Amino acid sequence: MKANILTIGDEILIGQVVDTNSAFIAAELNKAGIKVQRIFSVGDEPDEIIAGLDLAGNNSDFVFVTGGLGPTRDDITKQTICKYFNSVLKLNDEVLDDIRAFIGKRGLTEISELNRKQAEVPDKCTVIRNTNGTAPAMWFEKTKTHFVFMPGVPHEMKGLMTDTIIPKIKNLFSLPAIVHKTVLTFGSFEASLAQILEDWHKQLPEGLKIAYLPGGGIIRLRFSMSGPEKQTIVNTINCELEKLHQIIPGIIFGYDEDTMEKVVGVKLAERNLTVSCAESCTGGKISSMITSIPGSSNYFKGSVIAYSNEIKTNTLDVNADDIIKHGAVSQCVAEQMAKGVQKLTGSDCSIAVTGIAGPDGGSPEKPVGTVWIAVSTNKRTISRKYVFGGNREFNILRASVAALNMLREELIQIN
Amino acid sequence: MKANILTIGDEILIGQVVDTNSAFIAAELNKAGIKVQRIFSVGDEPDEIIAGLDLAGNNSDFVFVTGGLGPTRDDITKQTICKYFNSVLKLNDEVLDDIRAFIGKRGLTEISELNRKQAEVPDKCTVIRNTNGTAPAMWFEKTKTHFVFMPGVPHEMKGLMTDTIIPKIKNLFSLPAIVHKTVLTFGSFEASLAQILEDWHKQLPEGLKIAYLPGGGIIRLRFSMSGPEKQTIVNTINCELEKLHQIIPGIIFGYDEDTMEKVVGVKLAERNLTVSCAESCTGGKISSMITSIPGSSNYFKGSVIAYSNEIKTNTLDVNADDIIKHGAVSQCVAEQMAKGVQKLTGSDCSIAVTGIAGPDGGSPEKPVGTVWIAVSTNKRTISRKYVFGGNREFNILRASVAALNMLREELIQIN
Repeated sequence: MKANILTIGDEILIGQVVDTNSAFIAAELNKAGIKVQRIFSVGDEPDEIIAGLDLAGNNSDFVFVTGGLGPTRDDITKQTICKYFNSVLKLNDEVLDDIRAFIGKRGLTEISELNRKQAEVPDKCTVIRNTNGTAPAMWFEKTKTHFVFMPGVPHEMKGLMTDTIIPKIKNLFSLPAIVHKTVLTFGSFEASLAQILEDWHKQLPEGLKIAYLPGGGIIRLRFSMSGPEKQTIVNTINCELEKLHQIIPGIIFGYDEDTMEKVVGVKLAERNLTVSCAESCTGGKISSMITSIPGSSNYFKGSVIAYSNEIKTNTLDVNADDIIKHGAVSQCVAEQMAKGVQKLTGSDCSIAVTGIAGPDGGSPEKPVGTVWIAVSTNKRTISRKYVFGGNREFNILRASVAALNMLREELIQIN
Repeated sequence: MKANILTIGDEILIGQVVDTNSAFIAAELNKAGIKVQRIFSVGDEPDEIIAGLDLAGNNSDFVFVTGGLGPTRDDITKQTICKYFNSVLKLNDEVLDDIRAFIGKRGLTEISELNRKQAEVPDKCTVIRNTNGTAPAMWFEKTKTHFVFMPGVPHEMKGLMTDTIIPKIKNLFSLPAIVHKTVLTFGSFEASLAQILEDWHKQLPEGLKIAYLPGGGIIRLRFSMSGPEKQTIVNTINCELEKLHQIIPGIIFGYDEDTMEKVVGVKLAERNLTVSCAESCTGGKISSMITSIPGSSNYFKGSVIAYSNEIKTNTLDVNADDIIKHGAVSQCVAEQMAKGVQKLTGSDCSIAVTGIAGPDGGSPEKPVGTVWIAVSTNKRTISRKYVFGGNREFNILRASVAALNMLREELIQIN
């Protein structure tokens, strides 16, 4: 079966908001064995919504729609839906109860007129109740196509998809298997990697697709294959994965939903080791990445964000003369920062980064994007210089991922 | 004039990658006075690409296409383009020179076979040279529609759009004015805000559209209007903005591309004050937000990410008995953290956050999402309790924005 996705909202068409809902819906559908054919975005105009529904509904088993179901005046989707499905709005008591319960959790007792209107739903749809917000989802059938309308607020849509809509679809239909497997690599360029893998690529079995997805210093290699029998596909992919490991053993660091921070966290936890960071140019990004992982408090002690030189000397015990002599962006300062934060927090390992994120602060010898990274363990302290040469956001991200990867490589040596 | 956007890539349709390119292209086109009508995403299949070009080209002056121009085997867009525009690939010497120059900057001297193939471009297009990568952009005309193909790597596409394509369009066509103005508010819910603004909304002049865009605790109110004369539109919007300020003076904190961290940075710089943070549950997010702003080193001293209780007591001088008595997530600990980091870094102001980000660590008295935030200035220390009650990512973001807003409100009191 196949699906199309339609997102509604002028904010998408003027580029004010990035459409993250489509990616989530697409990922959930793929996991369930439904192929997404196309994604469409249209504006908050009745004619455009109708044109979008026609386009998305054409030759598709499902259409998943988000946006335009909020309580405010710019939300005209519901009226347009009624017209499209030849339906009328009726007050739904169950939905009204849900709205009352939801706003009650926020300490409100009185339902506003705008919230009350959200309890009015088209009479020809199946209502899917929303426990995370005030707008319910609505499911219609029209000439064999199922149309599912959801609110555009991401966490509401996500709750509806995973808790109710996907289970309902699995219940109603028998679906084929789609298997995706993603291999994460760090430390290569796309063209070089493709060249190394050229021969392997040529011998891949028919129907197995490979895509290269570069971003943030990481290249993701995605395997995709579909068929009637999941285990056959999994076996085919595993066989090719093994060959890949023979060709590029050093640069593979994870799979699928893994992130560098998650992989590092697992390696720390496995070894029962703790970590801390001393961040200058990354400004808290590495700590923020590490602590985005649930359970990171088991291995993350804390960090010092040492933007000013005084904090480097006073808190991290960096030698002030070394800063004068070699500059704050130097190998010896990076290594002293790593040792300093390790001592301060009592952690087993540490990461330190000092560099020039930009746009200002560069010099001919140390251009914007120059970064020194040090990693310290109970065994040794190592350091490496990078020149990323991008804009501020890019340099911060690249330095953070490179620093975490350096720790990952050191952890592999331990045990 | 109007445009459609087409993004090509299986990674979008399986939800592995969020399409951020469309939002950037849409924003640039809108600024230039070109209305984006629809956005389409299709997969890496020749038939789908051709269907996408037909859909996007239908009744549109421009089609902007990204994706599928990389060097690897999964990139079949170029061959499909040739078929669609009845063109053939020819080696372009200028593009080859650009590729040579680009890989030279990375210290490589030999062009790989894959990179050389990127110098082959369709003979019937205008080539737009790319200084940030190896794939050039290509501009075709077909039955009065202009098709512009760009590589999908975001920073390459961005460079091509702003440096070459938008200036070229402005040069070739005379465009009407589209004006968007966004007002950023913090501290209200969408439905409540809409109710407060109901009467004002009703009296808006014809053609002026308002949209509510909630996210991360912030509600953005977007004004949109188009017409032949820019100044007339600006005056109309300014007049309504003034009225809005009369109705909701307390909750407006910025405009357009402002972010909470940018506004706070401006306020600190204006007052010549410095800041530091003591972060527990936000794990470096607040510091990372502050330092994402270029020039933040002028007012940001540094932070302590105090995940473990020992760091709270040893480095931030929090009383260990208070942690035992009141818990790490408590008013007195938050206030001591704020004062501690202020003293440690010698900053004028500070922010401290301690809370339960989740998914574990909650209790009936202090459920997941409970956060204490303290802000300290040279005048006083204040603190406030929040219960966000979302998932880990949501709680961290909401706590970070709320903390920055508390500092912003304190700064308004100073001077």
